[in-house]
Amino acid sequence: MMEKQHIVIIGCGRLGAQLANLFSEQRKDVLIVDAQAQSFRKLSPAYGGLTLEADATDVSTLKEIALREDTQLIVVTNNDNTNIMIAQMAKHLFHVRQVIARLYDPEHACVYEELDIQTICPVLLSVAEVERTLAMNAKSSNIKAL
Amino acid sequence: MMEKQHIVIIGCGRLGAQLANLFSEQRKDVLIVDAQAQSFRKLSPAYGGLTLEADATDVSTLKEIALREDTQLIVVTNNDNTNIMIAQMAKHLFHVRQVIARLYDPEHACVYEELDIQTICPVLLSVAEVERTLAMNAKSSNIKAL
Repeated sequence: MMEKQHIVIIGCGRLGAQLANLFSEQRKDVLIVDAQAQSFRKLSPAYGGLTLEADATDVSTLKEIALREDTQLIVVTNNDNTNIMIAQMAKHLFHVRQVIARLYDPEHACVYEELDIQTICPVLLSVAEVERTLAMNAKSSNIKAL
Repeated sequence: MMEKQHIVIIGCGRLGAQLANLFSEQRKDVLIVDAQAQSFRKLSPAYGGLTLEADATDVSTLKEIALREDTQLIVVTNNDNTNIMIAQMAKHLFHVRQVIARLYDPEHACVYEELDIQTICPVLLSVAEVERTLAMNAKSSNIKAL
């Protein structure tokens, strides 16, 4: 039997809100948490998931969310240390198997690796994309020059 | 005859510095511009390119940089409007053919498209990466369950 996937997003900044909107469109079971109610304004009017105004660095918030071992937890507040702290609590106190966290500073990557937390690093993704774009441009100017 | 590729990066934040370090390692001709000298501390000690402390929204700075039509201009300050303004001046006053700009707010994408500026949007790249990671995790738990 497949239970419905339970996705929890911590942090309703641009990335958190975009993800929540996307999962809601895909009709997944999604909850987004932010300490500031006005952050939820970034959600689309069609957003059909849940919101919770609470501080996720507080363990009682994590209890309230009812994290399960099979919850997909995505931690994308705008602070690397906050993300590490929440991810760690989820792993160790609630035994959440899959935690993805945003990482601003690529130099923190080793900390996450040790803690077995998957990371999304926008800077590294952007560097790769700039390289890809430059290579594509070079190729298309070579074609024009032929 | 191939002239050496001329790369100019505006904004020495995390992304700008990472790109500058990378292009310097690749022995490309690179110049990075930032209004604050202390931003250059993010460059690696091995960085072999040039730095310029100047306000790139000032047209005299763009003249000083000696932008050429074939300059690869990468505009990655931490402000979308500043990036649009600089990219536009480079296109219209200096006829730079290839301008890549970072875009924080995906809703600004249409403005860039109209101006024929290529964009790197970390939020959209991150959304795609989260989706890829979740799909990969789902696949590997299915394999384990077999």
